[in-house]
Amino acid sequence: MIGIFDSGVGGLTVVKEIKKLLPDVPIVYFGDTARLPYGNKSRETIQKYSAEIVDFLKSKGCRTIVVACNTASALAADYIREKYPDLKIYDVVSTGAEAVAETTKSKKVGVIGTTATINSSVYKKKITELDSNIEVFTKACPLFVHLVEENWTRRPETRKIARTYLRDLKLKKIDTLLLGCTHYPLLEKIISGVMGRRTKVIASGEKLAEELKKNLDKRPARIATRSVAGGDEYFVSDLTEHFERLAEKILGKKAKIEKIML
Amino acid sequence: MIGIFDSGVGGLTVVKEIKKLLPDVPIVYFGDTARLPYGNKSRETIQKYSAEIVDFLKSKGCRTIVVACNTASALAADYIREKYPDLKIYDVVSTGAEAVAETTKSKKVGVIGTTATINSSVYKKKITELDSNIEVFTKACPLFVHLVEENWTRRPETRKIARTYLRDLKLKKIDTLLLGCTHYPLLEKIISGVMGRRTKVIASGEKLAEELKKNLDKRPARIATRSVAGGDEYFVSDLTEHFERLAEKILGKKAKIEKIML
Repeated sequence: MIGIFDSGVGGLTVVKEIKKLLPDVPIVYFGDTARLPYGNKSRETIQKYSAEIVDFLKSKGCRTIVVACNTASALAADYIREKYPDLKIYDVVSTGAEAVAETTKSKKVGVIGTTATINSSVYKKKITELDSNIEVFTKACPLFVHLVEENWTRRPETRKIARTYLRDLKLKKIDTLLLGCTHYPLLEKIISGVMGRRTKVIASGEKLAEELKKNLDKRPARIATRSVAGGDEYFVSDLTEHFERLAEKILGKKAKIEKIML
Repeated sequence: MIGIFDSGVGGLTVVKEIKKLLPDVPIVYFGDTARLPYGNKSRETIQKYSAEIVDFLKSKGCRTIVVACNTASALAADYIREKYPDLKIYDVVSTGAEAVAETTKSKKVGVIGTTATINSSVYKKKITELDSNIEVFTKACPLFVHLVEENWTRRPETRKIARTYLRDLKLKKIDTLLLGCTHYPLLEKIISGVMGRRTKVIASGEKLAEELKKNLDKRPARIATRSVAGGDEYFVSDLTEHFERLAEKILGKKAKIEKIML
């Protein structure tokens, strides 16, 4: 069983990629909607929240945890790796950085994300640790999250804003653009359209799903047994219609979502 | 001394209006930036936070309190009026509703605000309580706050979004549009431009400042003494560069802002 968490609904874009490659592996999702946004909270607070969520996912039987939140990945992934040595922890930042390093040929890449993520320089650091020859250009695109939340994923207004945000990155002639925020895959068409054919737009979710599959394929018998046991479970700390509507849009189907206080 | 609070930076648009009419009355501002947004929190929590802030403002010597946050006005203004009978409490929702009722001639008005404010129907209720002949049309414009936060107050992207949001209200031929969110006055030019000359665009801040002036003018001697005592003070529960930059933009000058935990 795979446990996945995010501060809100964005992590469901990672769930979607995982379900594509591993349709039979049950997942438990937790969205910390009562306490979002994580972006402006201290490291200590994010670590505390993350540990509470991991405890919950562990109690649900998860031995593999996916940190599907950029802020929590940046500030708390190493902390929970140390605190829970018995669990296998994946996080979107590490995976995103690896995906970029493997994809680029020109060694000029771009990363977009929220203001908090971009200001933390975490992607720049991780990518250049993997390959110091890579030049990383970044751009904070704070309105993208709100455009997704407003469900304006195919609107001309959104395309206009994307053109404004991405203008400088286009001029840098990057060959790879990482979507460093789990909301952004919902704008992939618009972003790819603006960047043009020569730039490959990638998200962490796909690469993360591939890695999970590779590791889980080593244990086929166990997976088979588990997948029979039960379906996917979705939990949030505060349930709104808004969440349910966005969740349905991302997953492409209605999911039963339960509210739970940690 | 006047105490003013908001969940964040938006209430400073109200401060600006008050300083225009009452330049010599010292104010104490509190922005609850560590706990924002208020929009998605429960009534109980908003009342608790509001009372904590009023206690703080009272300890600073304020006998007049302005609730410059729409959510707190809707959910907690009556609660603090009852809890602090010795204080004079003003709130942006009551004042905004009065301003609308006084301004409209056609009895067709519009109110725009955040999703939480519009869904609460608080303006509709207050306005029709004042004049049951008034037809109130509302529209949530959630992206406006984020466009202001991004400092895109004069951009073509923002104008395009405003045209989309306001299309239906324009068709209703309203003669008055209330900006039911303290961030929106920063978009007044764009909003007025989109609505056209026949619609008067109003914000609560101006009317609130007029009422304050009317009441304080009854006690000129006391004000004169107090205004000598000290200048304005600005407090927030979490201080970021972002807040300082926006505060400067709204107030038109740099203000010394202190962080304080309640």
